[in-house]
Amino acid sequence: MNNDRLKKQIDFIIEIDKLKQVFRQSILIGDSRNENDSEHSWHLAVMAMLLSEYSKDSIDVLKVIKMLLIHDIVEIDANDTFCYDEKANEDKAERELKAAERIFNILPQDQAEEIWSLWREFEEMKTPEARFAASMDRLEPILLNYNTNGHTWKKPNVTSEKVYKRAAIMEDSVPKIYELVKGIIEDSIKKGFLRTN
Amino acid sequence: MNNDRLKKQIDFIIEIDKLKQVFRQSILIGDSRNENDSEHSWHLAVMAMLLSEYSKDSIDVLKVIKMLLIHDIVEIDANDTFCYDEKANEDKAERELKAAERIFNILPQDQAEEIWSLWREFEEMKTPEARFAASMDRLEPILLNYNTNGHTWKKPNVTSEKVYKRAAIMEDSVPKIYELVKGIIEDSIKKGFLRTN
Repeated sequence: MNNDRLKKQIDFIIEIDKLKQVFRQSILIGDSRNENDSEHSWHLAVMAMLLSEYSKDSIDVLKVIKMLLIHDIVEIDANDTFCYDEKANEDKAERELKAAERIFNILPQDQAEEIWSLWREFEEMKTPEARFAASMDRLEPILLNYNTNGHTWKKPNVTSEKVYKRAAIMEDSVPKIYELVKGIIEDSIKKGFLRTN
Repeated sequence: MNNDRLKKQIDFIIEIDKLKQVFRQSILIGDSRNENDSEHSWHLAVMAMLLSEYSKDSIDVLKVIKMLLIHDIVEIDANDTFCYDEKANEDKAERELKAAERIFNILPQDQAEEIWSLWREFEEMKTPEARFAASMDRLEPILLNYNTNGHTWKKPNVTSEKVYKRAAIMEDSVPKIYELVKGIIEDSIKKGFLRTN
């Protein structure tokens, strides 16, 4: 029995418990508490299970789900970076790379490499799987914001133009869902959940 | 475009946001807050990704992950039932069945049936996938308890015998991990985290 391998895997599993304490900008529907990264990752993985039929390209759903399950683990060290905070985004890549090095390498080498590869693919947003995963990552906060009177959208520097820009990847990856999202954004503007400038 | 189908899927996705507010008995490592079902489901899905090599039988990892992602959704209505509370477990099946009927049927029929089927398979614990999924569901709280001075194990009516009984499925499904778990349970008894009677 290779105890050392199993020990490394268990050490990683214990380490990532910390993701339950990394908080995002969104709040839960019907509550004022901020959502955390592990809750968000779970929600995206279920969404991928249910919405894969809308992907324009054929996708490997297991790969998408794996990406979504691990995509935020680096935030244990690097913390959540608000997507509309330009200053905080300047050193995001550097902070996250350092985090990946520490955290992924707790795993046995072959699995560390697999997680690295999934995370890199997600970040690069080039493959159909990564683009679909990114679409889920855009869709979930839109649904949460729409159902919490535009909670995060009311923060400084957020406008409908920026929300559209961030959702743009969905137009190509999941066009039918993008149509629905446009309706949500327009209705949010009408309802005063989102400013146009 | 079949808007009605997508609308049902989105309604379900919004409904299950509530799982983030269903609390379990375990607390987070390094914190006194109780873990919720969505965090737990995410943790189990990542564990399945990393530990599938220990399954005695060959398993479909995507199916296992899907099961784990949805296995607790019924608790939105039925609430978490403490596994060592015999009285609360008497009507658990009935409460959960009613919950499944309401919640799964928010989805389009084909997907409602898929989720029903995954949930039923998980609950019956007969297939290699269901037994591996159950093993992950047993392992995670053992790791959390071991790393929080036996938090849940200190509650009334919990003894090492009951913990062993609940972990028993792992002996057959993931024998190498069961060896590790035995070590954890024995060490927990020694450290006073877990009573023998």
